[in-house]
Amino acid sequence: MSGISDLGYARLDTSRPRRQGLPEVVYAPGKQVGEIAGIADRLLAEHPGPVLVTRIDADAAAEVLEQVPGGHHDPQARLLSWRPAPTRDFRLAVVTAGTADGPVAAEAAAVAGAIGLQVRVERDVGVAGLHRFLAVADELAAADAVVVVAGMEGALASVVGGYVGCPVIAVPTSTGYGAALEGVTALLGMLSSCAAGMTVVGIDSGFGAALAAHRIALLGERR
Amino acid sequence: MSGISDLGYARLDTSRPRRQGLPEVVYAPGKQVGEIAGIADRLLAEHPGPVLVTRIDADAAAEVLEQVPGGHHDPQARLLSWRPAPTRDFRLAVVTAGTADGPVAAEAAAVAGAIGLQVRVERDVGVAGLHRFLAVADELAAADAVVVVAGMEGALASVVGGYVGCPVIAVPTSTGYGAALEGVTALLGMLSSCAAGMTVVGIDSGFGAALAAHRIALLGERR
Amino acid sequence: MSGISDLGYARLDTSRPRRQGLPEVVYAPGKQVGEIAGIADRLLAEHPGPVLVTRIDADAAAEVLEQVPGGHHDPQARLLSWRPAPTRDFRLAVVTAGTADGPVAAEAAAVAGAIGLQVRVERDVGVAGLHRFLAVADELAAADAVVVVAGMEGALASVVGGYVGCPVIAVPTSTGYGAALEGVTALLGMLSSCAAGMTVVGIDSGFGAALAAHRIALLGERR
Amino acid sequence: MSGISDLGYARLDTSRPRRQGLPEVVYAPGKQVGEIAGIADRLLAEHPGPVLVTRIDADAAAEVLEQVPGGHHDPQARLLSWRPAPTRDFRLAVVTAGTADGPVAAEAAAVAGAIGLQVRVERDVGVAGLHRFLAVADELAAADAVVVVAGMEGALASVVGGYVGCPVIAVPTSTGYGAALEGVTALLGMLSSCAAGMTVVGIDSGFGAALAAHRIALLGERR
Amino acid sequence: MSGISDLGYARLDTSRPRRQGLPEVVYAPGKQVGEIAGIADRLLAEHPGPVLVTRIDADAAAEVLEQVPGGHHDPQARLLSWRPAPTRDFRLAVVTAGTADGPVAAEAAAVAGAIGLQVRVERDVGVAGLHRFLAVADELAAADAVVVVAGMEGALASVVGGYVGCPVIAVPTSTGYGAALEGVTALLGMLSSCAAGMTVVGIDSGFGAALAAHRIALLGERR
Amino acid sequence: MSGISDLGYARLDTSRPRRQGLPEVVYAPGKQVGEIAGIADRLLAEHPGPVLVTRIDADAAAEVLEQVPGGHHDPQARLLSWRPAPTRDFRLAVVTAGTADGPVAAEAAAVAGAIGLQVRVERDVGVAGLHRFLAVADELAAADAVVVVAGMEGALASVVGGYVGCPVIAVPTSTGYGAALEGVTALLGMLSSCAAGMTVVGIDSGFGAALAAHRIALLGERR
Amino acid sequence: MSGISDLGYARLDTSRPRRQGLPEVVYAPGKQVGEIAGIADRLLAEHPGPVLVTRIDADAAAEVLEQVPGGHHDPQARLLSWRPAPTRDFRLAVVTAGTADGPVAAEAAAVAGAIGLQVRVERDVGVAGLHRFLAVADELAAADAVVVVAGMEGALASVVGGYVGCPVIAVPTSTGYGAALEGVTALLGMLSSCAAGMTVVGIDSGFGAALAAHRIALLGERR
Amino acid sequence: MSGISDLGYARLDTSRPRRQGLPEVVYAPGKQVGEIAGIADRLLAEHPGPVLVTRIDADAAAEVLEQVPGGHHDPQARLLSWRPAPTRDFRLAVVTAGTADGPVAAEAAAVAGAIGLQVRVERDVGVAGLHRFLAVADELAAADAVVVVAGMEGALASVVGGYVGCPVIAVPTSTGYGAALEGVTALLGMLSSCAAGMTVVGIDSGFGAALAAHRIALLGERR
Repeated sequence: MSGISDLGYARLDTSRPRRQGLPEVVYAPGKQVGEIAGIADRLLAEHPGPVLVTRIDADAAAEVLEQVPGGHHDPQARLLSWRPAPTRDFRLAVVTAGTADGPVAAEAAAVAGAIGLQVRVERDVGVAGLHRFLAVADELAAADAVVVVAGMEGALASVVGGYVGCPVIAVPTSTGYGAALEGVTALLGMLSSCAAGMTVVGIDSGFGAALAAHRIALLGERR
Repeated sequence: MSGISDLGYARLDTSRPRRQGLPEVVYAPGKQVGEIAGIADRLLAEHPGPVLVTRIDADAAAEVLEQVPGGHHDPQARLLSWRPAPTRDFRLAVVTAGTADGPVAAEAAAVAGAIGLQVRVERDVGVAGLHRFLAVADELAAADAVVVVAGMEGALASVVGGYVGCPVIAVPTSTGYGAALEGVTALLGMLSSCAAGMTVVGIDSGFGAALAAHRIALLGERR
Repeated sequence: MSGISDLGYARLDTSRPRRQGLPEVVYAPGKQVGEIAGIADRLLAEHPGPVLVTRIDADAAAEVLEQVPGGHHDPQARLLSWRPAPTRDFRLAVVTAGTADGPVAAEAAAVAGAIGLQVRVERDVGVAGLHRFLAVADELAAADAVVVVAGMEGALASVVGGYVGCPVIAVPTSTGYGAALEGVTALLGMLSSCAAGMTVVGIDSGFGAALAAHRIALLGERR
Repeated sequence: MSGISDLGYARLDTSRPRRQGLPEVVYAPGKQVGEIAGIADRLLAEHPGPVLVTRIDADAAAEVLEQVPGGHHDPQARLLSWRPAPTRDFRLAVVTAGTADGPVAAEAAAVAGAIGLQVRVERDVGVAGLHRFLAVADELAAADAVVVVAGMEGALASVVGGYVGCPVIAVPTSTGYGAALEGVTALLGMLSSCAAGMTVVGIDSGFGAALAAHRIALLGERR
Repeated sequence: MSGISDLGYARLDTSRPRRQGLPEVVYAPGKQVGEIAGIADRLLAEHPGPVLVTRIDADAAAEVLEQVPGGHHDPQARLLSWRPAPTRDFRLAVVTAGTADGPVAAEAAAVAGAIGLQVRVERDVGVAGLHRFLAVADELAAADAVVVVAGMEGALASVVGGYVGCPVIAVPTSTGYGAALEGVTALLGMLSSCAAGMTVVGIDSGFGAALAAHRIALLGERR
Repeated sequence: MSGISDLGYARLDTSRPRRQGLPEVVYAPGKQVGEIAGIADRLLAEHPGPVLVTRIDADAAAEVLEQVPGGHHDPQARLLSWRPAPTRDFRLAVVTAGTADGPVAAEAAAVAGAIGLQVRVERDVGVAGLHRFLAVADELAAADAVVVVAGMEGALASVVGGYVGCPVIAVPTSTGYGAALEGVTALLGMLSSCAAGMTVVGIDSGFGAALAAHRIALLGERR
Repeated sequence: MSGISDLGYARLDTSRPRRQGLPEVVYAPGKQVGEIAGIADRLLAEHPGPVLVTRIDADAAAEVLEQVPGGHHDPQARLLSWRPAPTRDFRLAVVTAGTADGPVAAEAAAVAGAIGLQVRVERDVGVAGLHRFLAVADELAAADAVVVVAGMEGALASVVGGYVGCPVIAVPTSTGYGAALEGVTALLGMLSSCAAGMTVVGIDSGFGAALAAHRIALLGERR
Repeated sequence: MSGISDLGYARLDTSRPRRQGLPEVVYAPGKQVGEIAGIADRLLAEHPGPVLVTRIDADAAAEVLEQVPGGHHDPQARLLSWRPAPTRDFRLAVVTAGTADGPVAAEAAAVAGAIGLQVRVERDVGVAGLHRFLAVADELAAADAVVVVAGMEGALASVVGGYVGCPVIAVPTSTGYGAALEGVTALLGMLSSCAAGMTVVGIDSGFGAALAAHRIALLGERR
């Protein structure tokens, strides 16, 4: 635990690939385009793995790509990535309750894809029409992990968590209005779920869910 | 809208049976045994229908019954009642997510029974084992109304509300700990539910759910 | 419980009319115009009833109507609808506390109308001038159900709920400022109301209230 | 603004009668019986007006009265008082929504009485039976000020505030359960009321309401 | 309690002047310019007193004034008023903690002025420099009522409330950032104040404070 | 997904071992001793795996063991268990920030042990003395998963999550007072952690963390 | 940064005196008497400075003192201490708003005294009688640091912070009821204070304030 | 405590330099450019020390500088300052957890610099890569005070507070999203920190932290 690369405006943790199998992921908000490009450039030079920038809009991504070519921008996921990891033997299912959860699911899927997980997305299986869930239930149960992306009351997480036996990572989203409280309602519901052994990440954090899946995938590889 | 019966310690609304088909229901906490007995006595004299006291414990109920005989105390429901209404043509299903929701469901069922609804209780059909719900789903769909009693994340309400077409009244309960926030999590979840047209009453208010069902039953009778 | 129509971007629950007497209602925010048109088109093909899109602004509605003609856009209610249901024998009263509650009441009224309920709206009967309520009280009591739309402290709901005997559905609105907390104050007040048997839907959810009334109306028809 | 009487365990503000027409009122919780007696003794010596101790239970009150005789303990109001003020020309109406609001109303009434206001209490006029309010409305409107004591959703405050023209002081109480949130719901509702010009004091603060009325009464006397 | 004037879009309470000495005050947000003009026009016709529209911006005010001439718009207070009341024998002091509280104080002062109170504003006497308060303390104490306008922690209210003997109406403002929580911190602080007998109105409600003062002024006149 | 065993007071999901490799775990609060014994008895009969009862105190455990002998009660963990699973090839590290987090860690460790995980507990490595963490850091990094149990501000979770590469499950605890808000502060902190890919379970839910680890362990076994 | 003393039930940070001039302070709640005694014994052996146990009641303190003699228990402060530090050249003023803040102030004063600060306590100088503050203002201004202990709205902190130029550490207390929200109101108020450069510690944390003062005192000594 | 300079729109506390060693700092939001210039002009005339305007954007700053030349605007810190104080013998370390905390740290550093403290900023040492902290730990420990600027969960504050012995001032920032709750999560975490003797200022208040450091620096000078 020792590597640091100091760019003045950022202090990169260059030993993270060794500790966690992945370099630092860059969070774009609050950073200048030049800073993002500089960090990406350094990360690409320091190690051979994928380099990712999250929550970046199309204009900033285009500017960064001019300075650091060779990357790819996924506008729905707001992800900029270079040098995706080779495909791993790990099947991640990402399932959403409704259409409005799409951008968060897209971030989860895009990040997971860039770091080598095999991702399948099942959209719009909210529990208000339970047979939509039942139609994909066995497919979800066969995955190596499931990411459940749901806003409003987040009930899909409990239904998935109660059905499948694999690790379930719930992502509350800020969709809905009024009593949905910008995702807090879904978050509290997922943490209080009657489905035992489910875990939760932060509101709208598709990124966090993908990295939690990555930790599980790594574990399978090292054993 | 005019009847009042003033007992000094209480000002009874004696025109409520005419307006709403039911006399005032007495909420026991904060009232003296003598006051409860006095109110019950007066209500029994003022009109011919059922008289109910909610949230009353066994000791107080026994004392009241000595002064106003002929009633019945249901300890789990904490309900004291006299002169139950004749059975109406209205089938109410009360369904709970787990065992801990029992007392709230008991209050809903006992109040509903005392005011003449036909009640059937289905216990412990939480969504963590979805087939438990599926086993009773068609029975619930055949009811005239369903009361869903659930704590923790309250997901059962969304599943029921999305399945059945009849009126659904959700009762959040204060079961669970930590992020369940004494019922607030279930309450917010039920209000944000993806299942359209479901309605919600206050936390732990089995009483409120029974009276909401009563309003619907009355409607059917007067039409 | 089996019908699904998969459009790729949406997974329609086509058995909902059979279960609940009404197809899925489309929530516009977060969906592309082309997606909304595609869903509406499919729903119109799948069953003979009304098709509704909520929370859609005028520009998007016009674009959708070019692709799926024959519908109607109500700008205050932000509702786009095709093929309204035949009028049912059910009188719904929608009552508001103040002018600012208008858009939510308009959504409730327009959705209820499109699904066949007979709707009458009484505006601006806030309890600060109680005689305004008294002037319409008996009319409200004669309705088959009342939707109360109120922001700020939401006291109108308690007054209506205490007066009428029919089902009362309270809709808290996000009108008001400061301590009104974007509708949370009205929501909590309605849930804590001293008027027994009232039910509540989510903040600003005129749509939810209309569908709750629809469930009650259906019940009357099937009995 | 200068008088201080230092008892070691308390630093009395002896110029308060000159500034506000009333000595410090002693809040009992957290104080020793001996301290309360010592403070009362000193206040009785320092000025000729009434001396009050709030929130004191019967046992502590009896002990204090042994050391400082001549006072009176009102158990429902939890008030200990010596030397009540002469009756002033100011009629205060205290009105409660329900029986459970009784102790807070009792505190308001007892404090107001001890400082010379003429107090009339109207109990149990909750808006669920609006005619109970209408029966006393003109009497309330004729008072010099009205204190409204209400828990749950606190709607009575809006109804009173909209009817009468005199100063209205609303006291939210912690009665109710669940979504009543220990009085926070009533508090928020009263602050967001549609009835203009109403003011609010802290949860359960019958004492605060009485002193607010006292300020208004003083104003009338000095003009 | 009987007068109603129904404009279709609004149901005016025309008996309010008789009950409360002042017609309804119009809250502009959410109303069309034509509606505001229509209401103002009707109110001017119905009774001889002042007519007020609050929270109205300059453009809307100008449009309304074209339709209903003779009024005056105060841009800082966002108040539009016609026919100010004659000056009453009541001196209201409005005091602010800081410059940012200015607009709320301006609303309080302008409304109070339009309804006939004599208003004096003391700005920027925050307790961080206590001698600024001490310099005006005796002037405040000589007023008939004091409105304290303060954001952040709202401590000025406690200092004023502890010093003066006249009625004190505290208005929390949404100034400040972070832990000031949009005025909730000041609101809670004012409600919990150690200064007894102070009352509180809603966040940023200069209007509410002015009307509370009006009630007190009326009381003095009728006695 | 079909097995149900109906005991009247409980509806057991007997297909859970097939779906999730473990029978239902019994949550004791709110259940009668006889009910707990009945459920345990049935679960022991239905399948060959471990049977667990959580949150049960010593007296109730002793009574249950009289009726269903052969089990073991761990008082600190409040866990009653029969027939522990054979040891699996999965090393779980449980680490606590302070002594007060002990009972939650004990529950996590005891549940994990009963279902076959190899558990090692490292106590009292709070970040206020960072070298305590550094002394065990490499041991934690070598585990197959780490459960971090921390109250107050929960900072240990971020430090562990940033160091190790394996799955990290954070358990906020309700230790601490004041601004710790009964575990909500730690919960929010863990969800907002700068350490990517960490997941969180409910407040004080050592049980939830153990079952989340179980899901990961199962995954390794089936691959 | 290296010393650890592992007692099994606790992992002592023995390098803390070198880093921070003071050994770990033991927080009693949740620890066995034997554990407290064991930790105290070890800390006394490891270094020559003062050893402190906070939040310990009289019975537990007596038992610990039997095993580890020579210490002193202060019941109001709930502090058990051995070997107080020699008096330092640092004058700390502890000031309280009211009597109920006494126990928190006592903890601050007793801890500060045990670690060598010169402490003077000024009680009951709440701003409701501002001259009480003015009487001690210059004395406070002459201290090396001031700890302000206040509950309810916590306004005293702003008044002190605006007057004195030395470091001010504000301690919100959980005194008060209703809107005081168990100290959260005072906490938020102190953090939002208009008095610049004041700092805040946790609710009821007299201990935290004393240690913050200790850090300042150490700084003066090492310079 | 007596100096006041009344500008009409502001009431300057001109004795503050004598009490606290620094004139009032001007908070720009809500003030007109002309008012800011007028206040700055007066402050520059009244005393010889530094004059500061915080939270001012580039355009307003340029306008003010035209009227009151000789100052300097730091755009990242949003600080406008004239006549910086001579350098004092006090080394302040400002440390941030991440890049997004930059503006708050910049404000702290710029204000501290303008009032004479020697400031060193260490950026981006978040605990997710703990060795980044360890690399600067001894440098921080050698400072006279440390300001820790951190958002999200704010864990860096606990790590710094547990390591160094000098005064630590924690500044929560509103960086992060979802469960970070606009800085409230970091704020609560810092107040609940396991690192004893740390103090906290308001969310995003780099200014407050700098002034807290100034109080400590003054103390060292006067001793």
